[in-house]
Amino acid sequence: MRVLGVDPGLTRCGVGVVEGVPGRPCTLVAYYVVYTDPGDELPLRLLHLDRSLTDLVAEHRPDAVAVERVFSQHNVRTVMGTAQASGIAVLAGARAGLPVQTYTPSEVKAAVTGSGQADKAQMTAMVTRLLRLPEPPRPADAADALALAICHVWRGGTRSKLAAAAERARRGGTR
Amino acid sequence: MRVLGVDPGLTRCGVGVVEGVPGRPCTLVAYYVVYTDPGDELPLRLLHLDRSLTDLVAEHRPDAVAVERVFSQHNVRTVMGTAQASGIAVLAGARAGLPVQTYTPSEVKAAVTGSGQADKAQMTAMVTRLLRLPEPPRPADAADALALAICHVWRGGTRSKLAAAAERARRGGTR
Repeated sequence: MRVLGVDPGLTRCGVGVVEGVPGRPCTLVAYYVVYTDPGDELPLRLLHLDRSLTDLVAEHRPDAVAVERVFSQHNVRTVMGTAQASGIAVLAGARAGLPVQTYTPSEVKAAVTGSGQADKAQMTAMVTRLLRLPEPPRPADAADALALAICHVWRGGTRSKLAAAAERARRGGTR
Repeated sequence: MRVLGVDPGLTRCGVGVVEGVPGRPCTLVAYYVVYTDPGDELPLRLLHLDRSLTDLVAEHRPDAVAVERVFSQHNVRTVMGTAQASGIAVLAGARAGLPVQTYTPSEVKAAVTGSGQADKAQMTAMVTRLLRLPEPPRPADAADALALAICHVWRGGTRSKLAAAAERARRGGTR
């Protein structure tokens, strides 16, 4: 399966595309960082981000989109922009008719390094190794996006099926 | 001018459309509340919100969109969803090629009631009176969205022009 991962941010939004199957090393397809100018007005920035993500989804035709879940404990100054960017990322996947899954940073770290407490350097090193890249992806936002995509390849399919089954059970016979 | 105001929320998103000119009473065009089911997955909820807002913008063809600015001081449990909904609202206006302005709750209260500290009941009463409605709009999310639209009619044009002039000055001869 091919997965497009998004590390949401308003100023820098990481995007990573990988292909693979659970339990085997993934293959790098591409990675990007979408930048928006902090000096521009919010509508223009969200529009640029939406168009860029929509274009990347159309170009790479992933089977699923994985987006990092944002928490309000983050840096208060930037958290609202990050939350808005994550909404745009989730929407870009949903508008393309793709399954979209969100993961917490700990889930991604645990999936990729085996430890939910891994630091940024460990994450980047593992992503570089897992994708057999000649050097670490730069900037780091791209590494985080690739880690999200790897996490979804390894965990996502199963989790989505479980979530779908739970959803069906919850709704019972009503729909 | 016709303005579409949005009081963003993921579970309940208020939308109010008014027409008017600065300093004169506005006229009600329509108001709505877009609901999404908290039991549904996030991508489905954002997609429903995006489609609903895009449809309402297309139906009412406003000259501008006004969206309440979200702060991280809000209820921590719901603030991320509210921020994502506000991003979708700003994007819906921008995708339609419309000017989008955000206002803080205090700015809206000051514009509509004369006091930045007005409570919800005062706000609803003023919106009802200003639009000469036979009874208060229900639910309250709609009243807040109408207040945003009135605020933009009364303040928005001027502010946008000032902002545009400042933007041109800031950019100087570079673009």
